[in-house]
Amino acid sequence: MIKSDYKMAKEKVFAIKKLSLRVQPLDLMAGGIIVLMNAQEAHQNDIFTGYRVIVRAGKRQITAMVDLTNDMVQPGHIGLFYEAFSELKPDKNGFVEVELTSRPESIEYIKNKLDGKENEPRQISTIINEVMQNRLSDGEMTAYMTACYIRGMSDNEVVGLTDAIVKTGQKFELKRSPILDKHCIGGVAGNRTTMVIVPIMAAAGCYMPKTSSRAITSAAGTADTMETLCPVTLPIDEMVAQVRKIGACVVWGGAINLAAADDKMIKVRNPLSLDPKGVLLASILAKKKSVGAQYCIIDIPVGRGVKVQDVHEARSLAKDFINIGKRLDIKIEAIITNGENPIGRGIGPALECRDVLGVLEGDGPADLRDKSCQMAGTLMEQAGKCRKGEGHAIAQKLITNGKALSKFKQIVEAQGGDARKLNARSVPIGSHKYSFKAVRAGRISHLDNKMLSRLARAAGAPSDKGAGVYLHCNHGDMVRPGETLLDIYAESESKLDLAIKVLGSYEAIEMEKVVLDSLRE
Amino acid sequence: MIKSDYKMAKEKVFAIKKLSLRVQPLDLMAGGIIVLMNAQEAHQNDIFTGYRVIVRAGKRQITAMVDLTNDMVQPGHIGLFYEAFSELKPDKNGFVEVELTSRPESIEYIKNKLDGKENEPRQISTIINEVMQNRLSDGEMTAYMTACYIRGMSDNEVVGLTDAIVKTGQKFELKRSPILDKHCIGGVAGNRTTMVIVPIMAAAGCYMPKTSSRAITSAAGTADTMETLCPVTLPIDEMVAQVRKIGACVVWGGAINLAAADDKMIKVRNPLSLDPKGVLLASILAKKKSVGAQYCIIDIPVGRGVKVQDVHEARSLAKDFINIGKRLDIKIEAIITNGENPIGRGIGPALECRDVLGVLEGDGPADLRDKSCQMAGTLMEQAGKCRKGEGHAIAQKLITNGKALSKFKQIVEAQGGDARKLNARSVPIGSHKYSFKAVRAGRISHLDNKMLSRLARAAGAPSDKGAGVYLHCNHGDMVRPGETLLDIYAESESKLDLAIKVLGSYEAIEMEKVVLDSLRE
Repeated sequence: MIKSDYKMAKEKVFAIKKLSLRVQPLDLMAGGIIVLMNAQEAHQNDIFTGYRVIVRAGKRQITAMVDLTNDMVQPGHIGLFYEAFSELKPDKNGFVEVELTSRPESIEYIKNKLDGKENEPRQISTIINEVMQNRLSDGEMTAYMTACYIRGMSDNEVVGLTDAIVKTGQKFELKRSPILDKHCIGGVAGNRTTMVIVPIMAAAGCYMPKTSSRAITSAAGTADTMETLCPVTLPIDEMVAQVRKIGACVVWGGAINLAAADDKMIKVRNPLSLDPKGVLLASILAKKKSVGAQYCIIDIPVGRGVKVQDVHEARSLAKDFINIGKRLDIKIEAIITNGENPIGRGIGPALECRDVLGVLEGDGPADLRDKSCQMAGTLMEQAGKCRKGEGHAIAQKLITNGKALSKFKQIVEAQGGDARKLNARSVPIGSHKYSFKAVRAGRISHLDNKMLSRLARAAGAPSDKGAGVYLHCNHGDMVRPGETLLDIYAESESKLDLAIKVLGSYEAIEMEKVVLDSLRE
Repeated sequence: MIKSDYKMAKEKVFAIKKLSLRVQPLDLMAGGIIVLMNAQEAHQNDIFTGYRVIVRAGKRQITAMVDLTNDMVQPGHIGLFYEAFSELKPDKNGFVEVELTSRPESIEYIKNKLDGKENEPRQISTIINEVMQNRLSDGEMTAYMTACYIRGMSDNEVVGLTDAIVKTGQKFELKRSPILDKHCIGGVAGNRTTMVIVPIMAAAGCYMPKTSSRAITSAAGTADTMETLCPVTLPIDEMVAQVRKIGACVVWGGAINLAAADDKMIKVRNPLSLDPKGVLLASILAKKKSVGAQYCIIDIPVGRGVKVQDVHEARSLAKDFINIGKRLDIKIEAIITNGENPIGRGIGPALECRDVLGVLEGDGPADLRDKSCQMAGTLMEQAGKCRKGEGHAIAQKLITNGKALSKFKQIVEAQGGDARKLNARSVPIGSHKYSFKAVRAGRISHLDNKMLSRLARAAGAPSDKGAGVYLHCNHGDMVRPGETLLDIYAESESKLDLAIKVLGSYEAIEMEKVVLDSLRE
C-alpha cells in the first residue's frame, strides 16, 4: 500500500517537468532530430545541451536532442530544426508539449551485449523500436554496433534483428509467386546489372518488386540511373499493383520505407566504417524479406577498393547469407565476382543507362551483359523456371528475342516514363565533353573504381544525370599514344573544368610504364 | 619520379575544396563544435550534414561538424555556433578558411583496439590529441570507449592514456615537497571532506594544490561550496604562487585546464554511463599527476546509488589505483567507505559550507569530522609527517588547536574572500524554509543520496548557493510523530514550492512502518 503510493508519486514527478511551448520552425539542418530551447528556461527545468526530450504535437511525438540559445528562441517557445519539424509536423504557431525522456529500456540490453550476453529477439526488437523513436543517441547506437562488432552475433540475434527491422517498415503483400530479388554488396563503378536482370526475370514470368538505392558516395545508384527514364518514387500500393500487372518495378527504396530502421543504423555505422557482419546481413536481408522475396541472388564483388577485399571473407559471407536466408525462408545463392575494375563503360546515371539499354538491345558492354545473364540465369534455376545449367542461355535468349527490352519499356511506361522512342542513344548526356588521351604507349594495369566515381561526381553526377565518365579502355588493354582513355561529360563548362582538375590530381587509371598527360588539348 | 608527381597531385586536390568564408557568429549552443553552412554551397563542395571541416582563423584552427541551412547563412558566409566561436575566436566580420578534414589517424588505432590489439602509448597519444582537436566524432570516441570497456586495458595502456591526458593540459610546477592530493569516486551527498582535509594538511606543513569540480548531477561540488566564500577560478600562476606561500588552495579544476582531454572524454562516457575502468583510472590519476602529487588518498564509497556498488569491485579498483600509481610515481592509498547515506547535515553549497566550518571550529557533524580526520591522518602517515597510527589524532589536534581553521581562513583570503568575520553561522542560506516532519513513529532505514540531491537541486542548488536540504535525522534514528526530518531552504518562494512538490514525489527518506506526511504545514 505504501509502496504503491510511492510508485504513483514517482510518476507524478515527471509531470512537473512538462512544458507547453510555442513552435518556431528553424531553417537549420543538422542531419538529426534537434530542437532549440531558450537556455535560461531549459536550465530552470534541468535541461542541458545534449539532453533528449520528447516533443508531442497532438498524437505525434518525436524524441529530440536539445541545443540552447539565449536570444534566438524566447522563453515559452521552442525552435524546431528542419528534420524535427518535418518529422513532427506541428502547426506552425501551435503549441507542443515537451518533457525530458526517461532512460531508454534498450540501454540495459546494450550494456548486456557489451558484457558479452546474447540479446533475446524481444530485446533486439526493443532496441530497434527505440532507434525508430530517436530515443537512442548516436553514441548509444555506436556502442551497440561496436558491441555487435566485437562480440559477434549469433544466428538467433541476426534473425531477430532482421525480423525487428522488417517490422519497422510498411507491409508489402504481393500474393504472387515466385518473388525474386537480388543484391550487390557494392563498390563497383557502373555495375548496373539490376536494370538488366529485372526485365529478364519479369519476361520469364517471375515477379521482381525491386527496390534500389540512390548513390551515397558513388556516381550513380540504380535508383538514380532508372530516374533518367521515369519516376522512381512510387507509393507502395501503386508499386504492388504494377508488379502484379507486369511482373516488376525498379523504384527507390528510400521512398517506401520498407525497412526504415536500417537507414538510421546505416547513418551510425558509416563514420567508423564499422560494419558488424550480423548487422550487414540483417540490414540486407530485411529488405528482401519485406518485399516477400522467396529467391535471392547476392553478388559479392572482391578486390581492391570494394567492401570485401579477400576471397576467404567473401566465402564466409556467402555461407552466412545462405544460412540466415534459410532461417528466414529465403532461398539464397551468392556469387563471388571480380570487383577490381568497373563493369560496363559508363559511370554516371545517363551513361550507365545507355549501357543498360545497349545490353537489352542486344549490344552494349560484354561484361555487363555476361554478368547480368549469369545472375538472371541463376535466379531462373533457383525459381525452378528451367533446369540447372540452362539459365544463362535462356536469359541471353530473352535479350536476343527482344522480350527483355519490351518488358523494360513496359516498366518505364508503368512508372510514368515515355518509352516510345527509347533507345541507348536517345538518353541525353552532358553537352560538355573532354577526352583524356594517353601520351605514351602502355598497358592498362588498373581502373580504380573509387577514383573514377569521384571523377564522375566532380563532373556533376549523380545530381546532373548527364554527367559522368565514359571508359574507352579496359583492364589489360594495350594503348598507343594519342588513344582516348576516357571521356568526361558534364552539363556545364565549370563542372567540366572542375572534373579536369580532379583528373589531374587522382590516379584513376594506372598504366604500366606510361606517364599520363593530364593537360587539356 | 612518376609516383611522387602523383603524390603532389593528390595533395593538390584538397586545395580545390578550400573555401574562404565570412564569419557570422550565431546565438546557438549545441554542446559541441558546430558550424552552419549554406546548403547549396556546401553540396557544391561535397560537404553534407555531419561532415567535419577544419576552420582556420590566422594561426588558430578548430575541427567542426557541419549543419546546413538554406537562408540563415548565405553563400560565402559561415555561421559559428557559440562553442565554435569561443574556441576559434575569429574576427567578427573576418574571413576564415574552411576545408574538409582528412581521415583522422586515430581511426586505425581505434579499429585495432576493437579487434583486440593493444594500443601503443604513441597511438593512445594520437587518439587523445585528435580528441583535443575535435577531429573525432562522438560516435568514434564512443567506439573507443566501448572497445576499452569490452577489451579491457593493459597497465601500459592506462599509463599511456594518463600521460597523454597530462600532456594536453597546462604545466604546473610547484617545486616544493611533499605535494598531496585526494580524490573521491563520488556519489555521496554532502561528502565535503576536501575542504576539511586541505587546511589540516597545509597546517601540517604539506602542500595541497587542490583542484575540484563543480556539481554535474549533485547539489554541490567542492568548487561550488568553496565559491560561497571566495573566487575559485584562479589563473594557474596565481594558484602556484598561493600554494608556495600558504601551502594550499581549493580551486575549480575546470578553469585551469590541467587535464583538458578528460573533460571531452567525460562528455562521451556519460550517455551510456560507460566507465571503462582503465579510462576512469587514467582520468583521475592524470589530474593528480598534473599537479605533481607525490602522495594521494582515494575515497571509494560503496553502497546503493553510488558509483561502486559492491565491495569486491571496490577492492579491485583500490588495487588498480595503487598499482598504476606506482607506475606514475604517485604513492596511493585507497580507503573503502560506506556510501549508503549522506555525510554531514547540509546538502547544497552554503549548507555544506556551514558543515565544513562547523567541523573546523571543533563542532559540526561527527561523521564529516571523523572521515576527514581519518583521510588527513592517512595522508600525513604516507608523507612521513608522523608515525603509522598517529595521523588521525594529529589531524584531530590541528582542528582542536584552531590551526586548521586559521589555515582555512588564509586560503579564503588568498583567493580573494573575506574571512574576517567568517564562521559556520555567518554563511548566508536561503530565507525561504520548509520543515518536513514525520507523521508517525518509526526508524529511518535509508537516506537516499540521489533523491536528496535532486531535492536540493529542485530548491535551486547549486546555482542558488543558499538553497538545499538540511538533515535532522540519521540512518538508524528512531523518530517520533511531529519530529522534523529535514528542512528545505530556497532563495525564492517559487523554488521552495517546486522542491516541496518534488519532495512529495520522491522517496528521499525511507522509514520502516511509517507513512511520511508530505503536506505543507
